Amino acid sequence: MGRVTERRRVIRVRDGAVSTRPDTLVAEEPLEIRLNGRPLAITMRTPGDDFALAAGFLVSEGVLGSAADVRNIVYCAGARDDGTNTYNVVDVQLAPGVPVPDITLERNVYTTSSCGLCGKASLDAVRTTARFPIADTPPVRVGPGLLADLPDRLRAAQRVFDRTGGLHAAALFSEDGELLDVREDVGRHNAVDKLVGRALRGDLLPLDRAILLVSGRASFELAQKAVMAGIPVLAAVSAPSSLAVDLAAETGLTLVGFLRGPNMNVYAGEDRIAFEPAARRD
Amino acid sequence: MGRVTERRRVIRVRDGAVSTRPDTLVAEEPLEIRLNGRPLAITMRTPGDDFALAAGFLVSEGVLGSAADVRNIVYCAGARDDGTNTYNVVDVQLAPGVPVPDITLERNVYTTSSCGLCGKASLDAVRTTARFPIADTPPVRVGPGLLADLPDRLRAAQRVFDRTGGLHAAALFSEDGELLDVREDVGRHNAVDKLVGRALRGDLLPLDRAILLVSGRASFELAQKAVMAGIPVLAAVSAPSSLAVDLAAETGLTLVGFLRGPNMNVYAGEDRIAFEPAARRD
Repeated sequence: MGRVTERRRVIRVRDGAVSTRPDTLVAEEPLEIRLNGRPLAITMRTPGDDFALAAGFLVSEGVLGSAADVRNIVYCAGARDDGTNTYNVVDVQLAPGVPVPDITLERNVYTTSSCGLCGKASLDAVRTTARFPIADTPPVRVGPGLLADLPDRLRAAQRVFDRTGGLHAAALFSEDGELLDVREDVGRHNAVDKLVGRALRGDLLPLDRAILLVSGRASFELAQKAVMAGIPVLAAVSAPSSLAVDLAAETGLTLVGFLRGPNMNVYAGEDRIAFEPAARRD
Repeated sequence: MGRVTERRRVIRVRDGAVSTRPDTLVAEEPLEIRLNGRPLAITMRTPGDDFALAAGFLVSEGVLGSAADVRNIVYCAGARDDGTNTYNVVDVQLAPGVPVPDITLERNVYTTSSCGLCGKASLDAVRTTARFPIADTPPVRVGPGLLADLPDRLRAAQRVFDRTGGLHAAALFSEDGELLDVREDVGRHNAVDKLVGRALRGDLLPLDRAILLVSGRASFELAQKAVMAGIPVLAAVSAPSSLAVDLAAETGLTLVGFLRGPNMNVYAGEDRIAFEPAARRD
């Protein structure tokens, strides 16, 4: 089975001095996700939590909404030349009665995590498939001070990053700031899928009192994944895109960007941020 | 037609003070790439250089190798409700005689930019489709000092990043360190596709004397794109993955990671790095 890190020889240059030594790299391997035996998508990911990754991907695509939607998840017999299993093909078998999407007609919807001929169509696609309307979630309110501490706590929880420097991370926090779960992966979207898939398998969806923190930028795809899991607050250490902000505004998602200590930008859903009244200088 | 940046209202928090102001965000919109009229893939990208993005994507997938392979590239009439074109659907029409890949049988190959049930199959897929063997390119040698200067020059050339902080960048440099081209995009793979597509349209493939610099990590997918365009040197500001290093080692690509001023790691193809003999401390 694949490992999270691998060792390779590297030539290290430091201020003109050259030396050869072993280095630890983040592992990257393809994962094929099948649905009821039919290939659906391939993603390049860091091995580990593969069943959660597949389940979370299917939550993002609107196929799964609860643990009861899944009959079973198994590794397929994708064998190497020597007969050993690659553990790189996962089949998600739906429970009886769960609708199977027509992947022959709409394959792009399921292989790209986003679709539509314009941004508005992409927004519409999320809105029509979302099972857990964000606006209906219990009222979550978080203070800027609580948010300010989260990036450092995510960083402290990143185990593999310290060794390789090569991983994106995503974490779920409670509204009180408690770290609920953290995942690392070469792909940020995979890290989020792993978090959401683990929550689905624990029957914790919707994550309607959680804060999702991602280590880099907030793209449309990440905002989509938050919305599909019913997460009310998405915070990113770096910049959001225009379409991520539009999706947040349309679905009621709170979107925080450039979260760096006490400084942050709130792009949508500011009602959930408990600013001190005296702090406003509009 | 889509714009590279868009304006949105943002609530800005700086050391406890809260204010509302307009902010500039990087634009993100879906682009559907069609081949001879048939949908092939959808990518979320920053609008601009769309024909180059489509062409570069098809170089990476082994469909295109020279400007003569393309008969025409056009925007399809993907209309909004009000009848205006979205400029988000591009059709690449192949020149007569250019083989059309069988996208119905092998759709995953063309929608994910990587395939295979294990890492080795992914490497094999690149090796069998590569048109420009890296080992056959003219002998390119670059000094560590030249490499050391490139990240600052990439950063200086990033125009949109300065306004939004939200863009990945990729640049092509000559072996003498001359900046040949730079592109920015919400997706790093798109920035590379735009560079390669512009080169294809200028009939400059293979880029067998060029250095490709990317702003973040070096994934398998980026190494694949370098190999498919015949680029002998790929340098990244951050970490490579295991599979990127394996692909570089197998194809003869020089792969430099953690390129930060005079410090860098060389993971493969060190023959192209002109170290000072006295600097070696093996």
